[in-house]
Amino acid sequence: MRTYRQEFVVETATRRAFVNITSQVVKCLEESGIQEGLLLCNSMHITSSVFINDDETGLHYDFEKWLERLAPQKPYEQYRHNGIENNADAHLKRQIMGREVVIAVTKGRLDFGTWEQIFYGEFDGQRKKRILVKIIGE
Amino acid sequence: MRTYRQEFVVETATRRAFVNITSQVVKCLEESGIQEGLLLCNSMHITSSVFINDDETGLHYDFEKWLERLAPQKPYEQYRHNGIENNADAHLKRQIMGREVVIAVTKGRLDFGTWEQIFYGEFDGQRKKRILVKIIGE
Amino acid sequence: MRTYRQEFVVETATRRAFVNITSQVVKCLEESGIQEGLLLCNSMHITSSVFINDDETGLHYDFEKWLERLAPQKPYEQYRHNGIENNADAHLKRQIMGREVVIAVTKGRLDFGTWEQIFYGEFDGQRKKRILVKIIGE
Repeated sequence: MRTYRQEFVVETATRRAFVNITSQVVKCLEESGIQEGLLLCNSMHITSSVFINDDETGLHYDFEKWLERLAPQKPYEQYRHNGIENNADAHLKRQIMGREVVIAVTKGRLDFGTWEQIFYGEFDGQRKKRILVKIIGE
Repeated sequence: MRTYRQEFVVETATRRAFVNITSQVVKCLEESGIQEGLLLCNSMHITSSVFINDDETGLHYDFEKWLERLAPQKPYEQYRHNGIENNADAHLKRQIMGREVVIAVTKGRLDFGTWEQIFYGEFDGQRKKRILVKIIGE
Repeated sequence: MRTYRQEFVVETATRRAFVNITSQVVKCLEESGIQEGLLLCNSMHITSSVFINDDETGLHYDFEKWLERLAPQKPYEQYRHNGIENNADAHLKRQIMGREVVIAVTKGRLDFGTWEQIFYGEFDGQRKKRILVKIIGE
């Protein structure tokens, strides 16, 4: 059995953003040399997500609008957590979009359907955030 | 270490449906011969989900009604993604229900609580969709 | 390859509660002796969640209020599932918060960011509920 660990950093210019991280994850997988196994990719922060969906700008706009409807940023006073910080909405949005993805590794590649792409969903950005990749297999 | 990979196809008669896929996943596990490990089951499409919940018709009706309230299919024009397609709501619904499940394999069986059952949640069906099962262990 | 399995029980005094289970999971990991691998932690019930977020009382109050807004407990009659039971809302809430977490194990420790903590989210409690920990690695 072999294992591999790597982390990389994303820093978004805006408070919220969706960043396609598929190529970084593929690079980790290639570096690992693992042919068959499972790959975990997760945000190391609790105000952001790693998820799999479509790389389409219109859809990302829809996600942003939808998440703001389900868990609005403002007014800040609607959340008790905001006595300390102003990012309660980010903790909520991250629950809908998820923390992590687990991906099958087959013949040295991400075992994906046609349209699957990996995204980092940032809900409280404008600072360095870490993303973890862990692979186990052989 | 051993690994196993299989995919199977679901085609629903309606745009949205919940399909119990537990028996197909169990069949994969038995075929793999793996006794101890982890099993990943995910949709290979970005408008559908694999999730674990109750096999109860009333609850599935509640899921359908609830998801339509949180992310309605129509009017199509409310979503920018629908300039290209008409399935933006399906991409959103899938985020709530999730892409994948990871299940413990113990003594050659799915290590489940009493009521856990695996479902494929289709939100843009009426065509062939692929589901992946990957198992690693020994 | 080594595998480890353990379950433990949580019983909450209220119908809904968030319980920090990080120390129980760490104890499992230490007991396993596994240094590198993946750890799965999931609820064995379909009306509760295991998720990773912040250990902050204000935020937990926000989660409770938010989940009640998205999937209210009452009126019971709004859900068909409640012909049989009265916990349909718990099945819905669990979908937002998720069933499971998969965590990287590195150098014998949970490979976590600064603020990551593991929670059991109970949505239909006041009875014994089981949580599963499965670890594979070496």
